Amino acid sequence: MFSTVGRPVPRKEGREKVTGESKYVDDLCFPGMLHGATVRSPVPRGRIRNIEFPAGLPWNEFTIVMAKDIPGDNCVPLIVDDQPYLASEYVNHPEEPVVLLAHPAKYLVEKARNTVRLDIEPLPAIFSIEDSLAKKQIIWGDDNVLKSFLVEKGDIDAAFAEAVHIVEGEYRTGAQEQLYIETNGVIATANPEEGITIWGSMQCPFYIHKALLKAFPLAPEKVRVIQMETGGGFGGKEEYPSMLAGHAALLAWKSGRPVKMIYDRAEDMLATTKRHPSRTRIRSAVSRDGKLLGIDIEFIIDGGAYATLSSVVLSRGTIHAAGPYLCPNVRIRSQAVATNAPPHGAFRGFGAPQSIFALERHLNTVARTIHLTPDEFRRRNFLRRGDATATGQVIHESLNLEALLDRALDLAGYHAKVKAFAAGNPKSKIKRGIGFATFMHGAGFTGSGERYLQSVAGVEATPEGRVRILVSSTEIGQGTNTMLSQIAAEALGIDYDDVEIQRPDTSQVPNSGPTVASRTCMVVGKLVESAAIGLKQTLVKAGLLLEKYSRPQFAGACARYIAQFGPLKSYSQYQAPPGIYWDDDAYRGDAYGAFAWAVYVAEVAVDTTTFEISVNDFVALQEVGRVIHPVLAAGQIEGGVAQGIGYAIFEKVVWQNGRMVNGQMTNYIMPTSVDVPSIRVYFEETPYEYGPLGAKGIGELPIDGPAPAVLNAIENALGLAVNEIPLLPEMLMEEAGVG
Amino acid sequence: MFSTVGRPVPRKEGREKVTGESKYVDDLCFPGMLHGATVRSPVPRGRIRNIEFPAGLPWNEFTIVMAKDIPGDNCVPLIVDDQPYLASEYVNHPEEPVVLLAHPAKYLVEKARNTVRLDIEPLPAIFSIEDSLAKKQIIWGDDNVLKSFLVEKGDIDAAFAEAVHIVEGEYRTGAQEQLYIETNGVIATANPEEGITIWGSMQCPFYIHKALLKAFPLAPEKVRVIQMETGGGFGGKEEYPSMLAGHAALLAWKSGRPVKMIYDRAEDMLATTKRHPSRTRIRSAVSRDGKLLGIDIEFIIDGGAYATLSSVVLSRGTIHAAGPYLCPNVRIRSQAVATNAPPHGAFRGFGAPQSIFALERHLNTVARTIHLTPDEFRRRNFLRRGDATATGQVIHESLNLEALLDRALDLAGYHAKVKAFAAGNPKSKIKRGIGFATFMHGAGFTGSGERYLQSVAGVEATPEGRVRILVSSTEIGQGTNTMLSQIAAEALGIDYDDVEIQRPDTSQVPNSGPTVASRTCMVVGKLVESAAIGLKQTLVKAGLLLEKYSRPQFAGACARYIAQFGPLKSYSQYQAPPGIYWDDDAYRGDAYGAFAWAVYVAEVAVDTTTFEISVNDFVALQEVGRVIHPVLAAGQIEGGVAQGIGYAIFEKVVWQNGRMVNGQMTNYIMPTSVDVPSIRVYFEETPYEYGPLGAKGIGELPIDGPAPAVLNAIENALGLAVNEIPLLPEMLMEEAGVG
Repeated sequence: MFSTVGRPVPRKEGREKVTGESKYVDDLCFPGMLHGATVRSPVPRGRIRNIEFPAGLPWNEFTIVMAKDIPGDNCVPLIVDDQPYLASEYVNHPEEPVVLLAHPAKYLVEKARNTVRLDIEPLPAIFSIEDSLAKKQIIWGDDNVLKSFLVEKGDIDAAFAEAVHIVEGEYRTGAQEQLYIETNGVIATANPEEGITIWGSMQCPFYIHKALLKAFPLAPEKVRVIQMETGGGFGGKEEYPSMLAGHAALLAWKSGRPVKMIYDRAEDMLATTKRHPSRTRIRSAVSRDGKLLGIDIEFIIDGGAYATLSSVVLSRGTIHAAGPYLCPNVRIRSQAVATNAPPHGAFRGFGAPQSIFALERHLNTVARTIHLTPDEFRRRNFLRRGDATATGQVIHESLNLEALLDRALDLAGYHAKVKAFAAGNPKSKIKRGIGFATFMHGAGFTGSGERYLQSVAGVEATPEGRVRILVSSTEIGQGTNTMLSQIAAEALGIDYDDVEIQRPDTSQVPNSGPTVASRTCMVVGKLVESAAIGLKQTLVKAGLLLEKYSRPQFAGACARYIAQFGPLKSYSQYQAPPGIYWDDDAYRGDAYGAFAWAVYVAEVAVDTTTFEISVNDFVALQEVGRVIHPVLAAGQIEGGVAQGIGYAIFEKVVWQNGRMVNGQMTNYIMPTSVDVPSIRVYFEETPYEYGPLGAKGIGELPIDGPAPAVLNAIENALGLAVNEIPLLPEMLMEEAGVG
Repeated sequence: MFSTVGRPVPRKEGREKVTGESKYVDDLCFPGMLHGATVRSPVPRGRIRNIEFPAGLPWNEFTIVMAKDIPGDNCVPLIVDDQPYLASEYVNHPEEPVVLLAHPAKYLVEKARNTVRLDIEPLPAIFSIEDSLAKKQIIWGDDNVLKSFLVEKGDIDAAFAEAVHIVEGEYRTGAQEQLYIETNGVIATANPEEGITIWGSMQCPFYIHKALLKAFPLAPEKVRVIQMETGGGFGGKEEYPSMLAGHAALLAWKSGRPVKMIYDRAEDMLATTKRHPSRTRIRSAVSRDGKLLGIDIEFIIDGGAYATLSSVVLSRGTIHAAGPYLCPNVRIRSQAVATNAPPHGAFRGFGAPQSIFALERHLNTVARTIHLTPDEFRRRNFLRRGDATATGQVIHESLNLEALLDRALDLAGYHAKVKAFAAGNPKSKIKRGIGFATFMHGAGFTGSGERYLQSVAGVEATPEGRVRILVSSTEIGQGTNTMLSQIAAEALGIDYDDVEIQRPDTSQVPNSGPTVASRTCMVVGKLVESAAIGLKQTLVKAGLLLEKYSRPQFAGACARYIAQFGPLKSYSQYQAPPGIYWDDDAYRGDAYGAFAWAVYVAEVAVDTTTFEISVNDFVALQEVGRVIHPVLAAGQIEGGVAQGIGYAIFEKVVWQNGRMVNGQMTNYIMPTSVDVPSIRVYFEETPYEYGPLGAKGIGELPIDGPAPAVLNAIENALGLAVNEIPLLPEMLMEEAGVG
């Protein structure tokens, strides 16, 4: 068995966090530091006529940066290089950055931000998927389409021709704010001689590194990006920090002084990315015996004003849209379209929560239509080992979704509750219901994505036999430091306490890829494991260590090696597991190295007077391969479920002309501890051959299931099929025809 | 007249201070920063046998520095290089630093500081001036004498031979804590390649610069010292920051990381310098008509365990000991002696408050003895223009102390009150009294001191016609930035708002000497004035400016000069005013370029039940030359008087075996705003020819007079001559024979 893996060892950075020793970027304060602020567009779309600096403020004391001051390209590089650091002639969404200001006095820079007057000639704008699809205005490219995909399997038309049942539905999901505890923030120092250094709250230091090289004429080694302790990300600190770091660096470059920019909650909510709103239409063909013959999905997401990561979000949503079901004929047509809202971006789940919500709601409707229970209908269609997914990926791993479903329903007392609620509800104003969702989530980038990244992880030993992990993968609360240390300790047969983590700093660590896409454990963890094994082999080959050794022997070998040969480091670079192939053009093949599989069961009660919805029980059962750290893994699931419940019935972004108008935590309501039940988390552990010690990914999976499970439970409680989230009491009241 | 001098222009750094924008050293936080702490001797004197690090703390995580780790000399250089940065074999006072610790977690370093066990073999120690003089133990040098002076004028024995009256007395003053609002603190970065940088709270950046070069083998340009905004000093940040900066630099040097060391109030009170306790014995010979014939003074100060600045404090106390009186025959024998207390050090007044307290109390006793009023007796003995002081300095300036006394007594309603109190006191349990002191304080270092310093100040112009002052003189609350800017603006005929101050940073400014000794206005201000005039002359000589010019003409000239010749800077170096000569060996001559003169009148009420002493009125009248900024100047006087009242009747350092045992602000009581009257400040302005625009020094003067004035008033109220301060109610009760 394992010595540390599978055990709840203390978090590596836990002591620092609970004692307040941890340094977040806003804890730092440099001599001579300025505070930066951003003047943002008040209109959704328009042409900048003039920028005015009204009298009354000491403007000569301010550092002022506009688009013309950018020494390199005015573009935040990502997939399509369409988004500027600062708008120059046109603005394309509310809150788009136009002018940057810095001053030693924070209160003055705040005042100045509100004083600068942007004179903008308004242009017609669009704010809905429908208007964008209808090309009511062309606001991006030739056709408002940021990206589209087509996935085809079998013959969809033939399937519908032979169908006994055809079921159609439309499903909508709203935007969602990441609401990390710590808002976005960076400090930059920058000058042509010494280059740029960024300290900040972030998920992906090397993304920022790349982005800064675009805006500044510097050699790569002159840009250094350091992640400070980071209070959450959820995807919201994947791409946006590149914009913010660029802004701070521009102000630092011009002023010659360190510049701190920390968004307050309102700015963070209004100006940075959110989860893409979506509209999904599904039409399914089902046989007499309840087998899916064909499924035709149209999946549209609202990308906002610039392309950013929408194409990748769309890809993930598309790949997951047909769920863990076997269907011989599939067509998925998907589009990301532009609107004049701030760009939507990365958020845990990355498109999958949207398309999985649609599918899992749709399948409940199909089941009802063909008079099968939701579980029986799914049972007849589950993917099994040897089956191919919608993209044609054959499942080679051991997979028994029926057993997983049985266990989840058992744990939830599902069948007894279905009966009891059916009997009790007619007599009560409180209607109770139970529902579930079955789903999967791929770990890591798609097949081609990881090949393209070519991630590298390293380990370095000290003469005392301590081992330091060198990765750019970030701890953002999810447990990276702990989990990677466990893997390294296990691989080297040393104590967990003898492993430490180099703070992510682009000048000190290799690029192990971004901390996104449920890839840190499965992909980076595997690289750390290989690097650790490589380090051991180096010692063995040098004749300093036998294959079996004690801790002192290991330390002695490290000391001797270092004395003789110098630094003892070992690196490992990504190589795809055998047999994984993805065709980016046909959008077919092995989308992921591995999937995690799950069944989530939600129990709700709806007060038919107030239409308040309570989630009273929640069972989250998943197969994620080896669980490296049971407490952190359960924490990931609990957090994801809470966030998913928020997505389903609490968190509503209210839009007005492309601008979020409820950008405060008092009126954008996230669930608190009293709003979520005690989440019951269970794992199945089927070790994955190519994951570190058998682990797969776990980060995104738990956000996929709660929303459909909760809405399915509401359907069970009220007999009312609601297909749009978030579902707030007033909306449910209206759906119920009461309001 | 003047355009800005004499006007209450806004403080240069005022906005930053009131808005919280100012950065004090503890506001700074660098990435990877450690917190440093000092393990201090628990005993007053002993031999270090062992240093133990008891189990239970992760000592491997700590950076630990002991004497052996110091790369250069283990000595804080000052006058005599006797004080180590860290005790190695012997400790000589309680709280002497022995071990330095640093760790990222502040709470852990605090815990560690209390965990390290110093095993010290105690050695006999001494704690009083008497025991030191009696050589009960030899604890310093051959004889415990850190320094001694002898001032002789005339024939002291002959004077006593012809005296009608001979009066003797002994006078004692206690220690006093500086109690700046901001405790001592620094941050250091240090490594052999980049050298050392210190940011800190300090009075004298170049003292620290010098001190670090002793402890580290570095070239001068590799050491950089930057003063952060500083919350008060009062002398307490003259020499001690060199010790602290050395400590932080040693920890940074060893750890390779930035190290912050901020003393808490208790550590700052227990471990850093205080005002020297003193014992003064005076014997005076007076003629029948009340003329001082001779005065024989023995002035002893307790220097604590190391020499530090005691010799200089002793010098200032000695020079001021005979006061502003003409006496043909004077002998002043003074000694600074060692005890096993933490070294006493610089504190506003620098020895003069001690010797002036003694003299002004003594003269009241003499007056009573010879049946003259205190004012009449002084009137008969005041120095006048053309007279020579005790050191033989002939007063060349216009001086009329009688008129000054008359005005002060008038303003205080002195004579009427003397009568009224004499009439009313017998009938009241509250006894009222009024008293005064007449005194002088020299500005700047002694004649030889300023010559030795060779201070330099500079100014630099920008192309916009703004002028930046380049000095190492520090703003510590007293108004340096404002006052120097006024002088520069006046000299250049430009707006006060067009002058700015370079933050003191040894890499950016010339050494304008330490910010001590009431020298910043008179000496450095004069250098700034000369440098400014030099800058103007540079432009005139270059043909770019006429002698008379407007602001735009000045700006234009600066711009043209800079375009043509490069940076426009002007420096000025100290040259002694003509006719100033001081003989360090004979301790005779012109001690100071100029003196400020003052009469302070205090009115008190003593409750004869509780012996609580209230100061109900205070008139502070002084002649300080030109007043540059009336509000800041009055603030200096008010602060000095409040501190002097604290010195007299509130602030008692309670000693136990060389350690302060009341090192908290709850039991070391300083006067608050309710404990001091509304201080009435008046200036006479007799411009001093060699001061900037006629100004002299003002910083120390106001601490000299309050204590004797208050004790003289108590004598007037109770008829009781108390000659020891601080005089707390319980001590007064005992003196009154009631306790």
